[in-house]
Amino acid sequence: MLKEIFLVEGAGFCFGVKRAIDIAFDVAKKHKEGVFTLGPIIHNSQVVEKLEDLGVHPIEDINRENIKTLIIRAHGIPREKYEEIKQLDIEIIDATCPFVKKAQSIAEKLAAEGYQVLIIGDKEHPEVKGIFSYAGKKGAVISSQEIPTLNKKIGIIQQTTQPMSKVKEIMNKIINSLNEFEEIRIFNTLCNFTSKRLQATEKVAKEVDVMIVVGGKNSANTSQLANLCKKLGVTTYHIEEAKEIDKSWFKSAKKIGITAGASTPQWIINEVIDKIKSL
Amino acid sequence: MLKEIFLVEGAGFCFGVKRAIDIAFDVAKKHKEGVFTLGPIIHNSQVVEKLEDLGVHPIEDINRENIKTLIIRAHGIPREKYEEIKQLDIEIIDATCPFVKKAQSIAEKLAAEGYQVLIIGDKEHPEVKGIFSYAGKKGAVISSQEIPTLNKKIGIIQQTTQPMSKVKEIMNKIINSLNEFEEIRIFNTLCNFTSKRLQATEKVAKEVDVMIVVGGKNSANTSQLANLCKKLGVTTYHIEEAKEIDKSWFKSAKKIGITAGASTPQWIINEVIDKIKSL
Repeated sequence: MLKEIFLVEGAGFCFGVKRAIDIAFDVAKKHKEGVFTLGPIIHNSQVVEKLEDLGVHPIEDINRENIKTLIIRAHGIPREKYEEIKQLDIEIIDATCPFVKKAQSIAEKLAAEGYQVLIIGDKEHPEVKGIFSYAGKKGAVISSQEIPTLNKKIGIIQQTTQPMSKVKEIMNKIINSLNEFEEIRIFNTLCNFTSKRLQATEKVAKEVDVMIVVGGKNSANTSQLANLCKKLGVTTYHIEEAKEIDKSWFKSAKKIGITAGASTPQWIINEVIDKIKSL
Repeated sequence: MLKEIFLVEGAGFCFGVKRAIDIAFDVAKKHKEGVFTLGPIIHNSQVVEKLEDLGVHPIEDINRENIKTLIIRAHGIPREKYEEIKQLDIEIIDATCPFVKKAQSIAEKLAAEGYQVLIIGDKEHPEVKGIFSYAGKKGAVISSQEIPTLNKKIGIIQQTTQPMSKVKEIMNKIINSLNEFEEIRIFNTLCNFTSKRLQATEKVAKEVDVMIVVGGKNSANTSQLANLCKKLGVTTYHIEEAKEIDKSWFKSAKKIGITAGASTPQWIINEVIDKIKSL
């Protein structure tokens, strides 16, 4: 029986992660020694290992002597760390995601203009720590429904990966907490990649007989994709690698859909496609 | 029995109305002929009549020949009308309330910078018509819960007399209607006079035995004051003029509170105070 494969548009790495990895591989080609990334370039061990093989090593801090080139990962880093690195005699390759960079620069501008900068996001996330460092003394991160004491001039931005629904919920909460405000300036710093991938996955899932969702079993966004597909009633398999695939899954399937989480490299997706084609 | 009278702070005319009337009386003193106001200076016939006696006449439009001086009332006027008047050989006295002027100039600035200007207020109110004329082609007035199609860059302002509770409600609605926005800029253009008067009235009403609320029976904000007092359990009389007062109201009262709506002139309040004192 002839089978059709539908790959969801935007499955796998987001723009910023892809760009950072491309930069890292590119640097690996040109420099043979002393190349490091400040923290793992992404939270995917296979990618980190591949780069290690090419001589790009993740380090937690800059307290070592043989650093020649330092790559800043997609999440970005706090301003103080950046200033510290700039003092050293090393080449800096900034692979901060442009969307994160935009959020940092809006935070900086708002703080300079006297706004209390509120960042909707997860306090502990490296991206948020970086953005927060640009938010000035009055800056605050809002992770939950707890709203800090509001100043008269408020600037609101978001961690790039926050879901719009949560952002709206917290913005409403801020509005309801207002007293005698002067001005509120809200910038959209969301990267709508996650929501677009969910939408594209939904579209494919509605048209196929089986959905293969590729990504870490403990990846929140991959599980979200798998749950969406199951909810739509399509037979769904959540796998991490091609070797998990079983021929029997596709016995009566004419149309097969494939989607993948943000931490899934393209080559793993390709292996999955090849494996299905080979069956 | 000795009686004490407590006058609510801020009872009667708001800052902008008071200022416009002062300006009109001032002009009346200096100019003896050809002085007009575009529309009645305020919606209070006694004030308008007093000014008429001094030679200041309300006109609905500028199509007459004997205009030497034209006073623009507190509500302000649309930009087009202002441009039209500027072409004429007449003296313009602009008594537009500074808070309204501020809302007009923010609307103009936001429109010039490409924002879709949303005005929370009453479409039919002369103040809103004036502000709206500065809001550019994309501008819209939101009177109810119906939110227009939102652009990517949104500027939000308010009719100066809107209650904060309604403003918050509509701002929440706008946030919930957002799709892929870029930026939202909210300026507070409310004059908090109305809410402050309500607060001050509440404070006095809680301490007295009888409340006298002075203002038009069909004045929304005066009725709001009267209802608040009744709700607080104090014996309340809503009157328009001093002559309505009956001695029997104060038989067992030691403390008497007086408040007044935004359209009530000071002299009417003074007459009320004098009448009570004379009893």
